[in-house]
Amino acid sequence: MIKGCPFGTHRVIEPMGTMPQAALKIDNTMKIKNNELLLDVMTLNIDSASFTQIKEACNKDIDKMTTMINEIVGERGKMQNPVTGSGGMLIGVVKEIGPDFPDKSLKVGDKLATLVSLSLTPLKINKIKNVNVSNDQVDIDGQAILFETGIYSVLPADIPEKLALAALDVAGAPAQVERLVKEGDTVCIIGGGGKSGVLCAYQAMVNAGASGKVIVIEYSEENAKRILDMNLAHHVIIADATKPVEVYEKVKEITGEDVCDVVINNVNVANTEMSSILITKDDGVVYFFSMATSFTKAALGAEGVGKDVQMIVGNGYAKGHADLTLGIIRESKTIRNLFEKLYV
Amino acid sequence: MIKGCPFGTHRVIEPMGTMPQAALKIDNTMKIKNNELLLDVMTLNIDSASFTQIKEACNKDIDKMTTMINEIVGERGKMQNPVTGSGGMLIGVVKEIGPDFPDKSLKVGDKLATLVSLSLTPLKINKIKNVNVSNDQVDIDGQAILFETGIYSVLPADIPEKLALAALDVAGAPAQVERLVKEGDTVCIIGGGGKSGVLCAYQAMVNAGASGKVIVIEYSEENAKRILDMNLAHHVIIADATKPVEVYEKVKEITGEDVCDVVINNVNVANTEMSSILITKDDGVVYFFSMATSFTKAALGAEGVGKDVQMIVGNGYAKGHADLTLGIIRESKTIRNLFEKLYV
Ligand SMILES: NC(=O)c1ccc[n+]([C@@H]2O[C@H](COP(=O)([O-])OP(=O)(O)OC[C@H]3O[C@@H](n4cnc5c(N)ncnc54)[C@H](OP(=O)(O)O)[C@@H]3O)[C@@H](O)[C@H]2O)c1
Ligand SMILES: NC(=O)c1ccc[n+]([C@@H]2O[C@H](COP(=O)([O-])OP(=O)(O)OC[C@H]3O[C@@H](n4cnc5c(N)ncnc54)[C@H](OP(=O)(O)O)[C@@H]3O)[C@@H](O)[C@H]2O)c1
Repeated sequence: MIKGCPFGTHRVIEPMGTMPQAALKIDNTMKIKNNELLLDVMTLNIDSASFTQIKEACNKDIDKMTTMINEIVGERGKMQNPVTGSGGMLIGVVKEIGPDFPDKSLKVGDKLATLVSLSLTPLKINKIKNVNVSNDQVDIDGQAILFETGIYSVLPADIPEKLALAALDVAGAPAQVERLVKEGDTVCIIGGGGKSGVLCAYQAMVNAGASGKVIVIEYSEENAKRILDMNLAHHVIIADATKPVEVYEKVKEITGEDVCDVVINNVNVANTEMSSILITKDDGVVYFFSMATSFTKAALGAEGVGKDVQMIVGNGYAKGHADLTLGIIRESKTIRNLFEKLYV
Repeated sequence: MIKGCPFGTHRVIEPMGTMPQAALKIDNTMKIKNNELLLDVMTLNIDSASFTQIKEACNKDIDKMTTMINEIVGERGKMQNPVTGSGGMLIGVVKEIGPDFPDKSLKVGDKLATLVSLSLTPLKINKIKNVNVSNDQVDIDGQAILFETGIYSVLPADIPEKLALAALDVAGAPAQVERLVKEGDTVCIIGGGGKSGVLCAYQAMVNAGASGKVIVIEYSEENAKRILDMNLAHHVIIADATKPVEVYEKVKEITGEDVCDVVINNVNVANTEMSSILITKDDGVVYFFSMATSFTKAALGAEGVGKDVQMIVGNGYAKGHADLTLGIIRESKTIRNLFEKLYV
């Protein structure tokens, strides 16, 4: 048993020289290297964009979907949708731990969720047992490999699996809020009524403290009301984040000309860069967690209005992000109840 | 004379509610509001992507190009290429200053370069006097408006106009290096042999100091040699930044497993996100100045290899960026000579 590349490049078959995520085909031999982890897989949580594509391509026919998933994994050695490029995550039980795998606290038999995308995870499916069209989950009998740099979270005993999964999916966002927001800050969470937004609003309230100000911008009245009822913000603005002038005016009514120290963008739609930039003060920070963010729109947008703001790309990973996020679920009964209702 | 919106939204004609950059048509009436600036325009520096598109669409026929530019500005009220969406910058002389325009040191008759894109600048062309196909410049008789938030730089007397323009085009990059790099840091500049790269390498050498280490990654041997000759780096690596594994291995030969504190990406090609991330240490910073950066590739790439790095979107503007950049041109004879050779 020899040591593999920490990033898993030793398993790339084609094209050579690429990383596992960019590869078209990776080696899914279920024999681990010294620094790999072997998992018995129970459930695949297919990424929503990927699952929707498969569902539509197969007219929701379960047999066809089963065949399609088997074909993808058979061809690529990983569950990466060739159309969307996206993956998802999985739930599995630790079967074997390479002697050089870094986490020494992990034990055979631990149940965990991988937090690294299926689009780069070596996977072998023996049998697809169930395809659940309503929640994007596929139960399988199969195995997967985690590389030395692969991230995961041991599933806690006190939180239902699906609730934990839903929260862990966006764990990077509240972890960044924890780093960026200081006591007394004025913070705005755009799309604060969504899954990641709620977690960010909670963390912002904690960090900004009594002297701070947390503003949530939400699209629907219903979600806006929920945020206020849950006490997750000092102010809620109902506005369309794709309308920068409207958003700017409404934020200014609350903050005055100074606008915000930190802005967190958690929407799931395009064209919200400019709103985020306008409501951030000079020397302030915009954190773009939304995957609908356009790099050039952000870069040129800030220059266009002469705003010296720092704009951060939402890295899905931050040290300790899983613990922090599960901690919020434990601390906040209202968020736990909401997530149980929405995602379990 | 009343006050306009600082961002110029009062001049948006269509669609209403958008910002001037996103607008299809803006009001180019050359009568200023209280907080605007009126310029007599001498030269348009058309953005390279836009100029190339126009040149190709017109088969390099100067008359056709003249007509096309006149039509675009006639229709939109600004020189924004409808295909590329991009603009450029202009050189002009201050004709009239609104009483509420913020910069009180500016005088009628000052010659300046706008640092805000032509894609949002109200422009009226009376006559196109010359189209220079070799350097993307168009001499005109015309006028333009700068909004309250519009940024510009008064052209210095001691630096040739075209040299200043070339440097100011990328002024945001060295200004960020100045903020991000600390004494003793290991810094890597990817694409360090290009225009912005050279300025970044210079500033990194200054900030990292004697105890620091500056590494430049360049594609061509010629550019690599030039960097060493100019003493702009401690190490130069010749590599293709789209090959993450190769880049990572070569950087590790210099830095050991620790890799870099700060990575600056100045390339002009796609698919270099992963190289940038791999050579950045945990808790390190990647600054993406390259407009070819993909937001999702950066966000998912870092998560995929479990890297807790901060990734920053290259804002074209930073306070003091023009002064800092012109300062480098004044301090460094070798950079000045190189830029004179390449861009004047
Ligand atoms: N960077 C990463 O690593 C990473 C990881 C996971 C997810 N993400 C991204 O994070 C984003 C949010 O994910 P999520 O699960 O939190 O999504 P979500 O639950 O669907 O939340 C999105 C929120 O945005 C609101 N919204 C939509 N359009 C809006 C508009 N025009 N103006 C104002 N608010 C608007 C929605 O409000 P309504 O419900 O009222 O419409 C909703 O509250 C997605 O783009 C996802 O791709 C990033
Ligand atoms: N964020 C902003 O506000 C802003 C403003 C202006 C410009 N920009 C962007 O900044 C970037 C750089 O601009 P620039 O004017 O400095 O460009 P440039 O002078 O053309 O420099 C690009 C450099 O990248 C190198 N390069 C190209 N492909 C490479 C590869 N595969 N591996 C390693 N190096 C490679 C080139 O090397 P060779 O010459 O050897 O091929 C060259 O030295 C562009 O993407 C531009 O759009 C951003």
